[in-house]
Amino acid sequence: MMICTALVFFMHLGFSLLEIGLTRQKNTINILFKNVFIITIGLLLYCLVGFNLMYPGEFNGFFGFAGFGLSSPVVDGALDLSYNEGYTYWTDFLFQGMFAATAATIVSGAVAERVKIGPFMIFTILYVGLVYPIVGSWKWGGGFLQTMDTPFYDFAGSTLVHSVGGWAALVAVWLLGPRIGKFKNGKAQAIPGHNLPLATAGVLILWLGWFGFNGGSVLSADPGLTSLTLVTTCLAAAAGGVVAMMVSGVMYKNLDLTMFLNGILGGLVGITAGADQMSPTDAILVGSVAGAIIVFAVAFVDRIKLDDPVGAIAVHLICGVWGTLAVGIFGSLAGIDQFISQLIGVGSYAVFCIITSFIILFVLKKTVGIRVSEREELEGLDSHEHGMNAYPDFRLNEH
Amino acid sequence: MMICTALVFFMHLGFSLLEIGLTRQKNTINILFKNVFIITIGLLLYCLVGFNLMYPGEFNGFFGFAGFGLSSPVVDGALDLSYNEGYTYWTDFLFQGMFAATAATIVSGAVAERVKIGPFMIFTILYVGLVYPIVGSWKWGGGFLQTMDTPFYDFAGSTLVHSVGGWAALVAVWLLGPRIGKFKNGKAQAIPGHNLPLATAGVLILWLGWFGFNGGSVLSADPGLTSLTLVTTCLAAAAGGVVAMMVSGVMYKNLDLTMFLNGILGGLVGITAGADQMSPTDAILVGSVAGAIIVFAVAFVDRIKLDDPVGAIAVHLICGVWGTLAVGIFGSLAGIDQFISQLIGVGSYAVFCIITSFIILFVLKKTVGIRVSEREELEGLDSHEHGMNAYPDFRLNEH
Amino acid sequence: MMICTALVFFMHLGFSLLEIGLTRQKNTINILFKNVFIITIGLLLYCLVGFNLMYPGEFNGFFGFAGFGLSSPVVDGALDLSYNEGYTYWTDFLFQGMFAATAATIVSGAVAERVKIGPFMIFTILYVGLVYPIVGSWKWGGGFLQTMDTPFYDFAGSTLVHSVGGWAALVAVWLLGPRIGKFKNGKAQAIPGHNLPLATAGVLILWLGWFGFNGGSVLSADPGLTSLTLVTTCLAAAAGGVVAMMVSGVMYKNLDLTMFLNGILGGLVGITAGADQMSPTDAILVGSVAGAIIVFAVAFVDRIKLDDPVGAIAVHLICGVWGTLAVGIFGSLAGIDQFISQLIGVGSYAVFCIITSFIILFVLKKTVGIRVSEREELEGLDSHEHGMNAYPDFRLNEH
Repeated sequence: MMICTALVFFMHLGFSLLEIGLTRQKNTINILFKNVFIITIGLLLYCLVGFNLMYPGEFNGFFGFAGFGLSSPVVDGALDLSYNEGYTYWTDFLFQGMFAATAATIVSGAVAERVKIGPFMIFTILYVGLVYPIVGSWKWGGGFLQTMDTPFYDFAGSTLVHSVGGWAALVAVWLLGPRIGKFKNGKAQAIPGHNLPLATAGVLILWLGWFGFNGGSVLSADPGLTSLTLVTTCLAAAAGGVVAMMVSGVMYKNLDLTMFLNGILGGLVGITAGADQMSPTDAILVGSVAGAIIVFAVAFVDRIKLDDPVGAIAVHLICGVWGTLAVGIFGSLAGIDQFISQLIGVGSYAVFCIITSFIILFVLKKTVGIRVSEREELEGLDSHEHGMNAYPDFRLNEH
Repeated sequence: MMICTALVFFMHLGFSLLEIGLTRQKNTINILFKNVFIITIGLLLYCLVGFNLMYPGEFNGFFGFAGFGLSSPVVDGALDLSYNEGYTYWTDFLFQGMFAATAATIVSGAVAERVKIGPFMIFTILYVGLVYPIVGSWKWGGGFLQTMDTPFYDFAGSTLVHSVGGWAALVAVWLLGPRIGKFKNGKAQAIPGHNLPLATAGVLILWLGWFGFNGGSVLSADPGLTSLTLVTTCLAAAAGGVVAMMVSGVMYKNLDLTMFLNGILGGLVGITAGADQMSPTDAILVGSVAGAIIVFAVAFVDRIKLDDPVGAIAVHLICGVWGTLAVGIFGSLAGIDQFISQLIGVGSYAVFCIITSFIILFVLKKTVGIRVSEREELEGLDSHEHGMNAYPDFRLNEH
Repeated sequence: MMICTALVFFMHLGFSLLEIGLTRQKNTINILFKNVFIITIGLLLYCLVGFNLMYPGEFNGFFGFAGFGLSSPVVDGALDLSYNEGYTYWTDFLFQGMFAATAATIVSGAVAERVKIGPFMIFTILYVGLVYPIVGSWKWGGGFLQTMDTPFYDFAGSTLVHSVGGWAALVAVWLLGPRIGKFKNGKAQAIPGHNLPLATAGVLILWLGWFGFNGGSVLSADPGLTSLTLVTTCLAAAAGGVVAMMVSGVMYKNLDLTMFLNGILGGLVGITAGADQMSPTDAILVGSVAGAIIVFAVAFVDRIKLDDPVGAIAVHLICGVWGTLAVGIFGSLAGIDQFISQLIGVGSYAVFCIITSFIILFVLKKTVGIRVSEREELEGLDSHEHGMNAYPDFRLNEH
């Protein structure tokens, strides 16, 4: 579990490299700053309020709070290690705390290259500190989605983590509007990322992190289940990548590395809800569908004039929803009752996350504003917000 | 074991960064694409056919196949955890699957900057899907090399993984011919890699991965043997690097970072065959010899007019052979019988791998062709095969 | 423990990326070469002499040597696994060996961009091979700091590792003098690093490595204590980063990514001495103070005209001292006796490290010289000492 926590922490490097790799050089410092901020403030907030919002003990199923700070179970002056089997109170906190920050990181990628950093930091504090743990409690804290007759199932967070970030990304992208130059005469223009090697490294680091994300979510050291989970995770990732590569190859006559990478991520997000319930064949199917979804979803987001620089909505939201529903279709829980429970879960999260992220972002937009000035956007956020350049030694192309 | 699997997976990032770092910017996307393809398709193929080709159960010692797909041992509806001590069926599959892709990755580096991607993908499918598991079964599947009176010994794959990739790299490089500009008036020209920091990161990530590669190959949680294996692995790596640095420093009056890095890899490949049989002193000797070999082997490959952009032949083939033979010279198995068995093993793999890779690549060369056009090579594979540029924001030098 | 060793090894990649990221492109190969040299030679030296200098068994408390090479405890032909609980002799060697190299890596960053590589290699051999293990034995080898009435406490090396490197960095920076152009008319000039993404990746890799550094230093598999240690480590890092970001934001009206990153490292170094003795609240306080210290310390080092390109003195020396003293102020050991012991420890290390590093570096300075020529410094160490360019494909800005 502790090793898994380390791997989940490492995912934040993966997200950072992926996001800067897929965006332009002039906004690199800004994205790195946002992501480092998210990890650090996320951990502090989760310590202060989040953990006790998410695991409130007995509560009404919708909202509960066990008090500020961490209060470890101490018996006779020593940490109570009977807390539960396989991991300690502290490990539990840290593992969950690493998850918490992920939701905001997903948003960070979608709003890249045009969001004002101050308001984004406020959004992060509210969304990671309050919204994420409250919705988390509905399932992992023993809330109403857990106590239904056929409990909603989300093994490691297709919905609880990825779609929570994804819904907010959708709202934020819509409220922000597209980057200057993204749509010309109603047609989406490609704005290529500035560093594909770092983007690729980011995806492989994320895949590695998923060993911890899904492996650790078994929440025990049961070697049979944990190892099966790793197998389904890796097969879904591989299938997602290969299918996305083939579908985009057929559609665009191109061997597109970015699609390949997003397909891998789509497969990973898709398998996350049911990684411990699938056979290897199921996993390949779930991943393959996710890979195909990615290609169409990226095109669809473009078509409806939303500008999502890193494909966060396609990967985290749409594949997150797919993966959650797939638990009702494939694997050992498949069935109509389960499928309905999955729908209820997806819907509940959609409603709450859309409303809360809209309120936060709309208020920020109407008060301090959420978008940088046109000049700042054209010249880059790095020089304006941070007074720094990510690669001062290298000459740049004008474009 | 599961953690080791994660680390071996991570080696693919190491290979990717090393290969792009040592080649030119204009072919970066192509190399990344190839490597991501190898990992994903490799896992799927290993699931479909590879695992059951490599571990066929009882067979004639040369070739056997236990059927398509994975069939985990289930007893009374639950995974049979008595499969063996220390790891489960699923872990075994995933660990071996991560290895399988490595052989093709080695070839990928050697053929970089001029191979046609379609035929290379076909080669990968055949070599990873069929050749690797068949030769793997000879030893790790209990085949004829395992049932000899003095069994051939290859702890973690100096021969089974590295030389299998290395022989195919040799054949491929010979059939492909050198890159344009590599040899002028019969003299080898240096074609510097475009990103040495990423190459260095790649080597350190590979070293980290070797903790999993060799550590996991103990195939149990015996802490004494596993920790000894890690010590021999690290000492051989360190000795290989330092010796390669010193030898190349004396020969070329230069502190050559690339040689240092290749020396480390040579030491790692060299110790892999006998990492659990060596004392620390043996490990330092095996690594030191490998470090010296690297410097001479790189020069020799240049002299015979083979163009291997990343030094794959020197590192994986020549040090792989050295490491395999070293098991008969150093450590607890040393002896004339063992040395002969090692020779038989090395020879068997050489013959089979050279023939099969030659057949695959020769057929591809005569049908679809394996080399890109001159114009494509000069302008870069990225823009022609992928329509992308790895770093579109940066201006490039002409050269 | 073995996994922790792997993570500590990986810290060397973190250091390498951080150091090259914060310095100029023209010295990148040089820094990478130095760091790869430090890891490899460090391991070999620690095997040859270091381990037996640091753990001499019974000795006078100041200096002892148990003989050359490794002699593992063998009982009846097999490795004696009763060596101690939780880890083997080999693991112990490798874990400690990975630490040993860290001290020199810290110096490497401080002297970057102007040190002569040959003399630096000699310094590394002497400092890692002799000084580090001797001072290490004072505490971890059971020496006089361990046998005091109130033993000096340094859990994982705020003093034993970080300040040992930090004192030498201070002496080296002073003897070397500042880089050309660092001080103009008595005012410090910013010399921006050339690759902030790699610097950020370096810091996140170091944070990951600290999971191993502090987690492994529990030296057992006690899950309660290990997991508490990881929690305090991460909270201190987060607090250090956030506070450094806020303080530097107030002081310089800037969202400075470099300060944020150095604040995280300061928090990590600060918690290292007492990570197993602090509550989460203590950890946040210790990290916060470290974060504030970083901002003022970086300014102070500039003010006294020392040129430390990566902030090594502020991070490793000043936060290392702070963290060591903090054990006497916060957490379960807090008290006046403990504080005095901490002062004695800090002072002993200061005196010995300053004197020995001064002797080594002063002799080198007066004989072979420790600084490159002006021309070499201006044109870059890469082309002069290594005949290579880190990124030959990219055009550079003149500056």
